[in-house]
Amino acid sequence: MTDFPEIRTGIGTDVHAFTAPDSGRPMWLACLEWPGEVGLEGHSDADVAAHACCDALLAAAGLGDLGTHFGTSRPEWTGASGEALLKETLRLISEGGWRVLSVSVQVLGNRPRIGARRQEAQDRLSEVIGAPVNLGASTTDHLGFAGRGEGVMGIASALIAR
Amino acid sequence: MTDFPEIRTGIGTDVHAFTAPDSGRPMWLACLEWPGEVGLEGHSDADVAAHACCDALLAAAGLGDLGTHFGTSRPEWTGASGEALLKETLRLISEGGWRVLSVSVQVLGNRPRIGARRQEAQDRLSEVIGAPVNLGASTTDHLGFAGRGEGVMGIASALIAR
Amino acid sequence: MTDFPEIRTGIGTDVHAFTAPDSGRPMWLACLEWPGEVGLEGHSDADVAAHACCDALLAAAGLGDLGTHFGTSRPEWTGASGEALLKETLRLISEGGWRVLSVSVQVLGNRPRIGARRQEAQDRLSEVIGAPVNLGASTTDHLGFAGRGEGVMGIASALIAR
Repeated sequence: MTDFPEIRTGIGTDVHAFTAPDSGRPMWLACLEWPGEVGLEGHSDADVAAHACCDALLAAAGLGDLGTHFGTSRPEWTGASGEALLKETLRLISEGGWRVLSVSVQVLGNRPRIGARRQEAQDRLSEVIGAPVNLGASTTDHLGFAGRGEGVMGIASALIAR
Repeated sequence: MTDFPEIRTGIGTDVHAFTAPDSGRPMWLACLEWPGEVGLEGHSDADVAAHACCDALLAAAGLGDLGTHFGTSRPEWTGASGEALLKETLRLISEGGWRVLSVSVQVLGNRPRIGARRQEAQDRLSEVIGAPVNLGASTTDHLGFAGRGEGVMGIASALIAR
Repeated sequence: MTDFPEIRTGIGTDVHAFTAPDSGRPMWLACLEWPGEVGLEGHSDADVAAHACCDALLAAAGLGDLGTHFGTSRPEWTGASGEALLKETLRLISEGGWRVLSVSVQVLGNRPRIGARRQEAQDRLSEVIGAPVNLGASTTDHLGFAGRGEGVMGIASALIAR
């Protein structure tokens, strides 16, 4: 198996709580703004889909997690967009010689309703990551914090090779 | 690496709430009926193991999610079994030239107790999917909606190639 | 593709509740003791990171789950450490001819704060598993059982080949 590449997998989740309905905070998800939706809390843009992808990609490359690279000890990343975090993540993993084979991310929550913009959001993430990304969504049948509308969760897996 | 195939990963979760204990609703899980167990809510058979596998497989192939293919805009799938959804999922991904390398699904909940039928359930899913499937189960130490017995969650990952 | 190996993926989660603050129970996580931290309930050492890795590895190899191999029907494993369970897991999967390509595990909870010992914990798991492991951590923005400080969750994916 002389020409078999090194392959690794990574998994990551990210959760943010909704702000108050009158917060005026914008909703960012999958590197898209969702007008008319209540935004999520966070010292960044609280994009749970982008953040989960970052965590899965960093994990696959053995580079730790979001906190390692963008945490409170790195104030220059305060307020950074999900897209900016993804681009820096991709820079970090490419430094290790890795390329992305695929990323899969699922968004769990009642809002926003993903369906009508699912393909657009998937295309946006694929463009930012430069590899095939799938974006799925599910509600949790009114159960748990996502089902009660308290927040939104992203869960992602990534496959990389070098 | 001329003969290295294209490999992709997908992740998916599915949650359904329990019906009332006297609902008479059957419990379906992993394409098996579980006599004597209280069933789960859902416009399908609420098979969280089968549904999570569908979502992971669709995600791996970049085909979206359950809602994309079997949602309310496709009323012909109302009431469909987990097995029917899995078979259509496999048809969809095989149209893209993909074959399934492996699927892993874990069921989180207090009921049913999976242990005694774990191998049977795993064999059933492997037969339907036509590839190696692992079925695991865990409780959540009385925590969260699964631990309080409000519902059951399936979480799955899939690996496909072409 | 004559020299393309068989590759499989596995996913697993594990949850344990915190003991009372004055329980005196030690906290074990990622095969490390965390002095000064309140421990988790469990008939083992309640190491959610090690347990999630075991479940993901067993799942990848089609060997079921923790309960299959270390459950109440196997009292000899009562009180076993996460490291002991991981070593037995590795023995079981190597019997099937599998080698570990990579493991990724994320710890969800408020305590312990992983950051300062993240690399040490990751190195420890990599040493025990004998393959590249990534350990990440996240809080859940005060949401859910992990966010309320009721317990800790580990979520892991594994990639193996033969």
